[in-house]
Amino acid sequence: MKQIFSSILAVIVLFMSTLAQKTYPGSELKQLQSPQNPRIGFVIHGGAGVISRGSLTPEKEAEYRKKLEEAVMAGYRALQEGKTALEAVELAIRILEDSPLFNAGKGAVFNAEGKNELDASIMDGKTLKAGAVAAVQRIKNPISLARLVMEKSPHVLLVGEGAERFAVKQGMELVDPQYFWTKERWEQYLKMKKEREEKTVNMLGMPEVQQKYGTVGAVALDKYGNLAAGTSTGGMNYKMVGRVGDTPIIGAGTYANNETCAVSATGWGEYFIRLNVARDVSALMEYRALPIQQATDLVIQQKLKKLGGDGGVIAIDKFGNIGISFNTEGMYRAYINSEGKPVVMIYKDE
Amino acid sequence: MKQIFSSILAVIVLFMSTLAQKTYPGSELKQLQSPQNPRIGFVIHGGAGVISRGSLTPEKEAEYRKKLEEAVMAGYRALQEGKTALEAVELAIRILEDSPLFNAGKGAVFNAEGKNELDASIMDGKTLKAGAVAAVQRIKNPISLARLVMEKSPHVLLVGEGAERFAVKQGMELVDPQYFWTKERWEQYLKMKKEREEKTVNMLGMPEVQQKYGTVGAVALDKYGNLAAGTSTGGMNYKMVGRVGDTPIIGAGTYANNETCAVSATGWGEYFIRLNVARDVSALMEYRALPIQQATDLVIQQKLKKLGGDGGVIAIDKFGNIGISFNTEGMYRAYINSEGKPVVMIYKDE
Repeated sequence: MKQIFSSILAVIVLFMSTLAQKTYPGSELKQLQSPQNPRIGFVIHGGAGVISRGSLTPEKEAEYRKKLEEAVMAGYRALQEGKTALEAVELAIRILEDSPLFNAGKGAVFNAEGKNELDASIMDGKTLKAGAVAAVQRIKNPISLARLVMEKSPHVLLVGEGAERFAVKQGMELVDPQYFWTKERWEQYLKMKKEREEKTVNMLGMPEVQQKYGTVGAVALDKYGNLAAGTSTGGMNYKMVGRVGDTPIIGAGTYANNETCAVSATGWGEYFIRLNVARDVSALMEYRALPIQQATDLVIQQKLKKLGGDGGVIAIDKFGNIGISFNTEGMYRAYINSEGKPVVMIYKDE
Repeated sequence: MKQIFSSILAVIVLFMSTLAQKTYPGSELKQLQSPQNPRIGFVIHGGAGVISRGSLTPEKEAEYRKKLEEAVMAGYRALQEGKTALEAVELAIRILEDSPLFNAGKGAVFNAEGKNELDASIMDGKTLKAGAVAAVQRIKNPISLARLVMEKSPHVLLVGEGAERFAVKQGMELVDPQYFWTKERWEQYLKMKKEREEKTVNMLGMPEVQQKYGTVGAVALDKYGNLAAGTSTGGMNYKMVGRVGDTPIIGAGTYANNETCAVSATGWGEYFIRLNVARDVSALMEYRALPIQQATDLVIQQKLKKLGGDGGVIAIDKFGNIGISFNTEGMYRAYINSEGKPVVMIYKDE
């Protein structure tokens, strides 16, 4: 009798899981590992925005793809070797921060006074511990400082000089702010400055010109079943001094909870704060039991669009299912597919 | 036929609203106005923590009650006169900031270097616009600067000197940091400093001594049906320089959405950030259709407690229903009851 019951139950469960499978829309969603193996999963982004076909030279495009592949593979290999989701997230983000291609660490955009102010955050889905820094000017890898704030301070968010002083106490070397300077970003700054000064643009209306948001981020599921998320950015070109976007705001730019998912966002930060984008994806899974792709789509394609914001998110759940959604023309992104191979994408139609 | 149908419908609706009424636990919940009148509602808090009976002298207790009544009545009268929820929230919080009794504005606690660093935020439930400032040292009324950030800048959050420079550009006068100094807070600072130095306390373990969190906040429903929330604080006694708590984090310390509720929080900020407390109350109403008191109780009495944090929230929904929940021994709080009279409370058993 018991056996019959279990068999029936098994059939029901199988049937229901098929149903659940069918409700997932889109093609981004992957079951990363076979059920026999502990599942691991890794996804990164390098920002969203006006990245239409033809806007990048073939050489530049190849550079982006190469760096994204390097970062996603580095994180994935770390997970394969038994490193934690937190470690993989930090590792991959450091690679992206060190690359001048992305608006984080080296290659960050400049604020209205021609300075780089960097933001980053990281969150551990197992403990719900989190660390973040904002408006730091001399930290080579803000994501690593965010992790130190989480692990070595009683606080979640440290800003400005206080954050840098904490870094020094933790044995971190400060870099000269000149380290972050790149020719491309400086030219973008000068161009924006000229436009602002000529047009005496209403500051409330920014950005009239849609931007590329080069924020970087990563989400991971490790073999211990733990999720983590991290995000790092230089913010918005020509932002006001002291402006902090969604990246270091837990719940806006970054969120991780083993019960639901890990999320990293990129886009027009103010909208992501107002909507609590990362936490909302998690809430839709927690309270509405939405599959991860549906949850990211609902927030990005409906709520964010309705409010007038743009950008995107990457997310991963405890089963290794991936959600990727953006409402811009492109998003630098990469993940590891079910064969363990990296998939790197830039444009919307990929 | 139509009439019969409407009658049946009316009976069903009545019956269901009775049911809904019955699911509300606790006594805090009030239907503020009769359905014939446009409903308005106003609730404030002055912080939560170890405020047990006997810990305040009768004189001090009377001072607190008087100031809470003054602030809640000021906001309520503004709403009666047709002012907006945002205006009422700002007005009441300014009164609490100007009072040395509370840990916000004048009377703020000191950080580890003996300085005051202030945080505040405000949010408009109609537009989901929000403004916030963090780690400012020369702003007499941080809540008013938060509102300026919302209304006169393209950003949501400005920190440190950048925020102060924006204030000056907006015609706000800076005050000497000495303005915030009070004898009581300075003594609390010296006491904590001594304890830290003597015990070489592990900074990760703070605060061993449970604190009073004197953050102030307000939530309002105006006659136009709009909600707003605001919060202001000096943070945590002996916090690290540059530490930012939940108060200026939209979704953690403050949230407002006409579709659900307006929330202001007070407590151990790091936990409130990690749980996205204010947004979670709203999410439970949005996605689980919980009544406001149940939503606040679930977050504060269950989730927050489970994680090890303490504090409380005040909340109001679009019908004027109030939710108040805290897991500390007391919370300075006040609201306007259904007769339009102020109800002021401090202890748990009131």
